[in-house]
Amino acid sequence: MATSIKASVLKEIRNGSDHVSGQELCDKLGVSRTAVWKVIKQLQAEGYDIEAVTNKGYKLLSYPNILSGSEIMSRLSTTWAGQKVYFHKETESTNDDAKYLAEEGMDHGSLVVADCQTAGKGRRGRAWVSPPGEAIYMSLLLRPDFSPDQASMLTLLMAISVAEVINGLFPDLKVNIKWPNDVLVQERKVCGILTEMSAEPDYIHHVVIGVGINVNQKEFPPDVEEIATSLRLCHGEMIDRVQIIVGVMEYFEYYYGIFTERGDVSDFVHIYDGYLINRGREVRVLDPKGEYTGVAEGINDKGELIINLPDGSATTVASGEVSVRGIYGYV
Amino acid sequence: MATSIKASVLKEIRNGSDHVSGQELCDKLGVSRTAVWKVIKQLQAEGYDIEAVTNKGYKLLSYPNILSGSEIMSRLSTTWAGQKVYFHKETESTNDDAKYLAEEGMDHGSLVVADCQTAGKGRRGRAWVSPPGEAIYMSLLLRPDFSPDQASMLTLLMAISVAEVINGLFPDLKVNIKWPNDVLVQERKVCGILTEMSAEPDYIHHVVIGVGINVNQKEFPPDVEEIATSLRLCHGEMIDRVQIIVGVMEYFEYYYGIFTERGDVSDFVHIYDGYLINRGREVRVLDPKGEYTGVAEGINDKGELIINLPDGSATTVASGEVSVRGIYGYV
Repeated sequence: MATSIKASVLKEIRNGSDHVSGQELCDKLGVSRTAVWKVIKQLQAEGYDIEAVTNKGYKLLSYPNILSGSEIMSRLSTTWAGQKVYFHKETESTNDDAKYLAEEGMDHGSLVVADCQTAGKGRRGRAWVSPPGEAIYMSLLLRPDFSPDQASMLTLLMAISVAEVINGLFPDLKVNIKWPNDVLVQERKVCGILTEMSAEPDYIHHVVIGVGINVNQKEFPPDVEEIATSLRLCHGEMIDRVQIIVGVMEYFEYYYGIFTERGDVSDFVHIYDGYLINRGREVRVLDPKGEYTGVAEGINDKGELIINLPDGSATTVASGEVSVRGIYGYV
Repeated sequence: MATSIKASVLKEIRNGSDHVSGQELCDKLGVSRTAVWKVIKQLQAEGYDIEAVTNKGYKLLSYPNILSGSEIMSRLSTTWAGQKVYFHKETESTNDDAKYLAEEGMDHGSLVVADCQTAGKGRRGRAWVSPPGEAIYMSLLLRPDFSPDQASMLTLLMAISVAEVINGLFPDLKVNIKWPNDVLVQERKVCGILTEMSAEPDYIHHVVIGVGINVNQKEFPPDVEEIATSLRLCHGEMIDRVQIIVGVMEYFEYYYGIFTERGDVSDFVHIYDGYLINRGREVRVLDPKGEYTGVAEGINDKGELIINLPDGSATTVASGEVSVRGIYGYV
C-alpha cells in the first residue's frame, strides 16, 4: 500500500546533508514525534543504517538494496509519475492490480510494483515469467484526456524511457528498441511493455502501462536463453532495481508532458529511431491480410513503423507482429 | 444467473403446437423427470399458465409479462447473441457486471439484463437514471477479433438494431437515430448506448455494449421530459420488454455478421442514414479544438458523420458531441 509517511521521512533524511532533527521532521510532515520515532525504528528493522544522535537528530548512513514502496517514493523527483506506489511482495499481475485500483479511483501516475508475479501477462494474454527478487514488474496508471487511437504511442514513450535509463546507467551496453514494445540489450530482450486501456470508443477511462524488466537474473530457461537476457548478465554486477524504476518514472513524466502537448511523437522520432533495431534491417510483418517482408526505415509522427517494400514503395504498420532478421532467432 | 434448463423447457413448450410430453422433454434436454417437474412448478409459480394433462404432457396456454433470463432465452432464435442471459432484479450497472463477467471468461454474446440499476451509467461517466419495472437495461459482451479503432462502429450497429426493432413493432411511430448513439421516437430520446472496451492498443480483449431503452415509463422528471420519452408514452399501451430485447439481439447478430465480414459499415450506410435525424439539419460540433456548425449529410463507411461546412467544404466527425438543431432543446 501507499506508505507516505515512511517515504517522506526517508526522503528527508536521505536528502539532508547532515543530521535532521526529529522536531524538524514532525513540523515538516505534520506528524507526532512518536510517529517519526516509530517510522525510524521500522526503517532500521528493514536494514536502513540510521544514526540517531541526541540533540542532533537522524542521519542515513547507508541503505539496503531492497525493493519497497517507501524506497521508491523517497528517491523520486517527479511531479506525478510514481508519486503513489502500491508495492506487493507477490501478486498475480501488476497490470490487473492497477486496472482494479483504477476502477477504485486511484490517481493518475500511481504505480503498482511487485517483487514477484504469479500470473504475469505479456501481450495478447501470453504469459510473462515473473520469478521473485530479480526483475522489475510495474504498472503505471494514466488518466489521459486524449483519444484511444493515441494510446498506442504511450508504449513507445515507455520504451524510450526504459532505453534512456539503461543507456544512461550503462553506456557501454548496446541498447535497442524492437518496435513497438521491446527493449533489447546486446540484441536480447530485457524489457517488455504491455499497454492496456479501458475506454469508450472516443474516450479513455484509463490506461495501464505494464513494464517488465529483467534486472538481476543470473540465468534463463533453455527455451528463452537465446532471446532474453538481464542487465546483470550484460553488466556483470548486481543492480539496484529502485534506481531503474525511479529513472523510468522521471523520463516517462518528461516525455509524457511533451507528448500530450504535441499530440504525437514527432519530437521523439529521432530518439526512438536512434534506438530502433529494426532500422535498415529486413523485417517480416505478420499482417492479418498476409505476411510480407521489407526493410524498416523508422517511425512516423504517429509511431507507426515505416517499411520500404521490395517494389520500391513504402507502407506503414500501425500495430501487430513484426519480426526482425537476426533477432529472436529469425534468420 | 444463466438458467438454461428452465429456458429450455419453456422454449419446448412454447414452440410445441400441442402438448409436449414429460418424457419427450427429459429425452431432449437430458434431464430427469423430477427436474422437468420441478421446473414446471417453478414456472407456474412465476405466473406461466401451463396445462398438465396426464398421458399427454404440458402445454403453455399463456405467459406473464415478466422480465427474466429464462423468458428471454426461451424466445431467442439467435445463434450466439443473448444465448446466455445473466438476469438481475437489481444491480449497480449492467455494463460493470458484463465487464466483470468478461474478466471471468463469460462467452461472446452473453447478455446481462437488469430490471433496475442503482448506478446506471451513460457516456463519459454520466448517470443514467434506471428505475425498476419500466425500462430495459442490458449489456452485451463481445469478443471481436478486429482492432480497437473499429469498435466505435459497434455503437452504430446497435443503434440500427434498436431502431429497426422499434420501427418494425410500431410502424406508425417516427423512429430516428441521433449520431452516434441515441435512438429517438417522436424526436425524443428513448434509447442510449454506451460502448466500453478493454483493449491493448492493437487488440481488443472485450467490448461491452450497454443499451438503455425507455419502454413503459408513464412519466419523466421535469428536467428531462422535454427531451426523453418512452415507447409506451408514444404508443399508448404497455409493451412487452422481452419482445424488444429478443428483437434487438436478432438484428444485432445479423448486422454484426455482415459488419465483421466487411470490416466497415458500408453495407448499412443507407439504413443508418434513413434513420439519421441529423441529416440535412444544422449541427453544432463540440470539438476539443473549438466549436463549429454545419449541416450533417450522413455517415461514411467508417461510421463518421459527414458535415458540410458553411464555406462549401466538408469535414467528418469521428467522435464526440454533436448537437442537432431542433433536438434536445437546441434551438
